Amino acid sequence: MDPNFLEKLKSLEIPTCLRICCGTDGSVTFLLEIMTRRPVNVETESQFVRRADREEAALLGVKEGSEVNDRTVRLYADDTVFAHAKSLSPLERMPQTMRDQLMRADIPIGRILRDHGLETRRDMDKLEILEGKTSFGDVPVLSRTYKIVHKNSVLMWINEEFPIDERWKL
Amino acid sequence: MDPNFLEKLKSLEIPTCLRICCGTDGSVTFLLEIMTRRPVNVETESQFVRRADREEAALLGVKEGSEVNDRTVRLYADDTVFAHAKSLSPLERMPQTMRDQLMRADIPIGRILRDHGLETRRDMDKLEILEGKTSFGDVPVLSRTYKIVHKNSVLMWINEEFPIDERWKL
Repeated sequence: MDPNFLEKLKSLEIPTCLRICCGTDGSVTFLLEIMTRRPVNVETESQFVRRADREEAALLGVKEGSEVNDRTVRLYADDTVFAHAKSLSPLERMPQTMRDQLMRADIPIGRILRDHGLETRRDMDKLEILEGKTSFGDVPVLSRTYKIVHKNSVLMWINEEFPIDERWKL
Repeated sequence: MDPNFLEKLKSLEIPTCLRICCGTDGSVTFLLEIMTRRPVNVETESQFVRRADREEAALLGVKEGSEVNDRTVRLYADDTVFAHAKSLSPLERMPQTMRDQLMRADIPIGRILRDHGLETRRDMDKLEILEGKTSFGDVPVLSRTYKIVHKNSVLMWINEEFPIDERWKL
């Protein structure tokens, strides 16, 4: 864990459950399910395969032009959205069955990793507050970026945005 | 994740932060630090190397008589104890530097794993409420057992007990 990430997170005056969700090094879906005690569902906003540009290739540690899965989803507990998540996953690093799950259906990433029994670690990168027009309209968001690492390579790059408001009083 | 573990956890009428801590598939120390916004420290109650008996050997997937590190600690945020944790770790599976950290000092397991950049998964096993005389005196505890898996072998077997009371209103 980058000590700056942790210190920054601890300094924020935000609801405890939001801080936990934004700081966890475990599965967010699973955490939301425990927090809310409601079933958590994924709604896919977009999902397609494309070629990595130079910057993305550097981020993921693959060759420029490699195929990546680009997925954007919202995580719901019942009717309430708790997170907006974007992921980039190099296809060449993914077992075929995992690729199918990721590309086909509204399955949370935590569940996909768990179904495949993958051993991973999550390396936190950036944490910031965004205001103005966000993925939650006029509501400011806490945005974090991290990588899911498997076999010392980036399996997924993930950006999550969490709305900063009262929905986290759980 | 065992669906029974999750359903059982969701059904309990306990403070949200306690449910989160007992359910996380990430690092407990790190989570406590985010929750409490206070520095979290480990106090070692006992730590020694001994031979695994038949039952422990089966649990860990090693030969009977193999050396295991047996460690019992309490996790504090400032002066408040939040967890009582017992771990069994087969020495033969552990890199030397990790063995040194585990055996020598009051370093949390989450930090040890992170320092070594290990990719792991946590397989939840048992969840139960214990009453009567517990590791927290007369306070009932929520007890959970899980394994930290690395390279498809059990790196650590862990039992954690969390007191069920008001200290989780964070």
